[in-house]
Amino acid sequence: MASANINPINEGHPQSRNIVYQQSHVSRDKRGQVMGSRGGFRGCTVWFTGFSGAGKTTVSMQLERYLCSKGIPAYSLDGDNIRHGLNKDLGFSPSDREENIRRIGEVAKLFADAGVVCLVSFISPYRKDRESARRVHKKVGLPFIEVFVDTPLSVCETRDVKGLYKKARQGLIKGFTGIDSPYEPPEKPEIVVKTAEMTISECMHEVVSHLQEQGIIPSTAVEHVKELFVSSASLRGLKEEAATLPVLNISKVDLQWVQVLAEGWATPLTGFMREREFLQCQHFGTLIDNGVTNQSVPIVLPVSTSDKDRLSVSEDIALSYGGKIYAVMRKCEFYEHRIEERCSRQWGTSNKKHPYISMVAESGDWLCGGDLEVLEKITWGDGLDSYRLTPNELREKFKSMQADAVFAFQLRNPVHNGHALLMQDTRQKLIAKGYKNPVLLLHPLGGWTKADDVPLATRMQQHAAVLEEGVLDPKSTVVAIFPSPMMYAGPTEVQWHAKARMSAGANFYIVGRDPAGMPHPDGGKDLYEHSHGRKVLTMAPGLTQLEIVPFRVAAYNQKKKCMDFYDPDHHEDYDFISGTRMRRTARDGGSLPEGFMAPKAWKVLQDYYQSLPKES
Amino acid sequence: MASANINPINEGHPQSRNIVYQQSHVSRDKRGQVMGSRGGFRGCTVWFTGFSGAGKTTVSMQLERYLCSKGIPAYSLDGDNIRHGLNKDLGFSPSDREENIRRIGEVAKLFADAGVVCLVSFISPYRKDRESARRVHKKVGLPFIEVFVDTPLSVCETRDVKGLYKKARQGLIKGFTGIDSPYEPPEKPEIVVKTAEMTISECMHEVVSHLQEQGIIPSTAVEHVKELFVSSASLRGLKEEAATLPVLNISKVDLQWVQVLAEGWATPLTGFMREREFLQCQHFGTLIDNGVTNQSVPIVLPVSTSDKDRLSVSEDIALSYGGKIYAVMRKCEFYEHRIEERCSRQWGTSNKKHPYISMVAESGDWLCGGDLEVLEKITWGDGLDSYRLTPNELREKFKSMQADAVFAFQLRNPVHNGHALLMQDTRQKLIAKGYKNPVLLLHPLGGWTKADDVPLATRMQQHAAVLEEGVLDPKSTVVAIFPSPMMYAGPTEVQWHAKARMSAGANFYIVGRDPAGMPHPDGGKDLYEHSHGRKVLTMAPGLTQLEIVPFRVAAYNQKKKCMDFYDPDHHEDYDFISGTRMRRTARDGGSLPEGFMAPKAWKVLQDYYQSLPKES
Repeated sequence: MASANINPINEGHPQSRNIVYQQSHVSRDKRGQVMGSRGGFRGCTVWFTGFSGAGKTTVSMQLERYLCSKGIPAYSLDGDNIRHGLNKDLGFSPSDREENIRRIGEVAKLFADAGVVCLVSFISPYRKDRESARRVHKKVGLPFIEVFVDTPLSVCETRDVKGLYKKARQGLIKGFTGIDSPYEPPEKPEIVVKTAEMTISECMHEVVSHLQEQGIIPSTAVEHVKELFVSSASLRGLKEEAATLPVLNISKVDLQWVQVLAEGWATPLTGFMREREFLQCQHFGTLIDNGVTNQSVPIVLPVSTSDKDRLSVSEDIALSYGGKIYAVMRKCEFYEHRIEERCSRQWGTSNKKHPYISMVAESGDWLCGGDLEVLEKITWGDGLDSYRLTPNELREKFKSMQADAVFAFQLRNPVHNGHALLMQDTRQKLIAKGYKNPVLLLHPLGGWTKADDVPLATRMQQHAAVLEEGVLDPKSTVVAIFPSPMMYAGPTEVQWHAKARMSAGANFYIVGRDPAGMPHPDGGKDLYEHSHGRKVLTMAPGLTQLEIVPFRVAAYNQKKKCMDFYDPDHHEDYDFISGTRMRRTARDGGSLPEGFMAPKAWKVLQDYYQSLPKES
Repeated sequence: MASANINPINEGHPQSRNIVYQQSHVSRDKRGQVMGSRGGFRGCTVWFTGFSGAGKTTVSMQLERYLCSKGIPAYSLDGDNIRHGLNKDLGFSPSDREENIRRIGEVAKLFADAGVVCLVSFISPYRKDRESARRVHKKVGLPFIEVFVDTPLSVCETRDVKGLYKKARQGLIKGFTGIDSPYEPPEKPEIVVKTAEMTISECMHEVVSHLQEQGIIPSTAVEHVKELFVSSASLRGLKEEAATLPVLNISKVDLQWVQVLAEGWATPLTGFMREREFLQCQHFGTLIDNGVTNQSVPIVLPVSTSDKDRLSVSEDIALSYGGKIYAVMRKCEFYEHRIEERCSRQWGTSNKKHPYISMVAESGDWLCGGDLEVLEKITWGDGLDSYRLTPNELREKFKSMQADAVFAFQLRNPVHNGHALLMQDTRQKLIAKGYKNPVLLLHPLGGWTKADDVPLATRMQQHAAVLEEGVLDPKSTVVAIFPSPMMYAGPTEVQWHAKARMSAGANFYIVGRDPAGMPHPDGGKDLYEHSHGRKVLTMAPGLTQLEIVPFRVAAYNQKKKCMDFYDPDHHEDYDFISGTRMRRTARDGGSLPEGFMAPKAWKVLQDYYQSLPKES
């Protein structure tokens, strides 16, 4: 038993205890709020330069919104807040122009020093003025990032939003940059963006990537997910090494979790949770060491005592399933799997008749955490692997579809026209909000489910039929499989479902009644109160990149003969078709009311249920 | 069943979804991080004015540290970062002085606009310049707070830190404010602080209080606890009203919770938790609607279905115990008490043999939340009420003792010399860190405990004996009673113990092995892993005003014949005296090794154990 040192200032407060708002000259050594902290964030100045109309302010405003939405302080200096205030005493003479830029450079430096990403958008035509601004930053060690908004003069002149070029050409404005005053393009700007060739969003992401590469903003704030696959160059070496390591045989569900981790759904986890991550997850529903990320469900690898004793000899181990090595886990840490406590905190029950808990109860008494290096993409050879898109593949897909909003729908059941109505309705609402091309991610869960759920293959056929029949528009819908196992953990699990879709680039998440719920294993009522999932999800920390869209209740309208949003004033018109009734009808080869489900899709279900052994 | 509207931007995101870093002109409508958000925080400018040497920078730097430690962005503008940068082109001529202050005012406005508390420290001798700075803020609706640092010239001149007064008197500096240049004191400053009469800390708190009153910084960031007692002026009216309200008879433990809430230990809770607070507590261990506050244990009022049905007729109800009305609860909200789920999430078990869970299991199926108005201080008439100091009373006490650090020690057991050693050692460590007068809050828990714990009265006698014998120094120790019930909820509860002491003004909290732990009700091992309490506590969000001091293991050193920090290299020297052995020895009238516990204190325990009926 080691005696802990008392060190009131530093003990037990690793780097996660950064202050929310880090300041350079007084507060670097002070503790502050953990949650909401932005890891190792530092301030900097991003200096946009280019012709009038080049798009400097448009890009910088979008960047400001993006950074703020991720909790990163950002502030714009532009003509609006500088020319009429600090620099209202300055005109447009060469010396005044120089002084204008000098002061802006100094103010930007103060903001950067205060821990803010200061976004400066001025034509700033002269190289030497920009170099002066750079110098004052360099002198105090603050990053200065020059962004050349390289839009040809002809394009800017065509845009001519404020009619300034016209006036300059008419000689009504003198000394206009590009017309009768020179522009000196940067010689070595950190970044060049071409608004004539790229979208504003692409331009912005160029800057974001740079900020992230420079370590100025944390990687969790970046719209890219870190995968845990080994590079092809290292693959052979890793395979050779893996063959020399102690091997742990893992279960199919464990392998599904390896896939979840490897593909980056649980970003920023780098492998099965260590104890520190596990405790954060169980007590706070979040990971807090690198900014706040929602992580409500533990992603852990149980091992038996005998496996632990056998494996503890090595820092690194190989994970094998079905005789094949899938991954190497580094710097393994074993800690107690306190099954009753873990289940109680995760499910709000430790009832062993719960289908997932029953698996946990049979698993090992230890958990093994560590960093994963995964050999290759995990596939299942069931004909559905092409639907198993990783978060990064989905992001690419959305990009290629030019989606400006992605709304995700998690499901583990067949789609009926009520769901379809909801998804269509959400799409319409997003369009009304100004989005031009919202894309639906129809995202059935593809990992382990309990025995009486409809199997994945049948669900995929059913979803395909729904699309074929045109109930959902294939052009604005991506159907893909979410590789996670299902845990039936209600309000705790719905956060995981949302967070994983956030990793895949979704901006909106549709949440229904009693998400991830099920009946209480002891019968009687349901395991979770039906509204808790939605309520907890809308409050959940660390889901900042996602808007939660509550489900509207849909039911069969017997007058309109279609699925319709429920109107309690006309309760008598509605037929609430339960899952039980649907299953029974399908099994009996019967039909549900016209308009409840696309006929081809209904046929898929009928075939499936009729193929099952009759209930005794 | 109401159909929920889909409103992707606003739905389900009440005011808690403020962005971390609120900006005025682009981002007010954007969502951001919830945790770490600072509620309705707005930026502002705090303008310190006064003679050179008045203490402007000293106060503002301390304020900056204070605000940053609470996650509130603050930034100082002063000679250091302005005169050599932005205003390096300006001298000390009257017009340059004016332009100096004008620019500072404009830059401060930009910082305030960016959501920062901008702290400006310049002599700024001229009224009209300060009024101009005020005007540019007013024009855009940003608060401007003028702080007159009213230190007599004679005092400033005596201080003369930089030798400037001397030089000015010698005529080496011209135009020095107060010597050969005028200072125009503010006519209506928002705040006046007198550094010659008040400590820097008191001056700073004047400003903090003002910022809080103006709603510029959230009340949770302020070192004052809101009590829920009704004012004496309203007492009579409330009593009359209470007599007309439906009455709920509450249990003794419920009344202990009323006391906890009323005295402000659970700040910012304003009464028994409503469902929203309860869900935040159970899922995230925090309250997140007004900044992030740690709140790991639910403080809830269970009621039976029949009581709920009876009480639902009224928005407000009266709470009665033993025939006396103690409080009125307003805008009551009833929600399901899902006992298994609540206990599982709170204790990591729902085992009904756990002593507190057994009470919960017998309680009502509903929870009733609402705002409390408590009639008067709750007392128990057991001769110990004078030890029941409220958080605000404790803060006053620490202030009167001129404590510059308070370290809290929670206990529910007798104090032995190992504890005493640890407390003395902590004190020494704090002194070594530079604290001049660290005060120990020896804070036994005084609410409900399980039957086999030593009763409060005996413990208080025992603690008194320890102080009488001089084991702990009475001059730097406050003994008071913490009115909370004990829950035996391990890592979840230790956060509550720490948070409550934070409310009482403690800066340091000593955490031991297995805090708030107990044996598993089914026997075998302990309910919690012994290190989890410490680990969870050091990571816990919302405990920013508290440093966690891990417990060093102490044991009886048989060579030194005293309690000593355990040294594993000399394991054979140590005798670990278990609680069981201590109890058995006390009951048998025996003695423990010399130096284990102060003799008078040991006598208290012997008397107590010998008074118990013999075990069969």
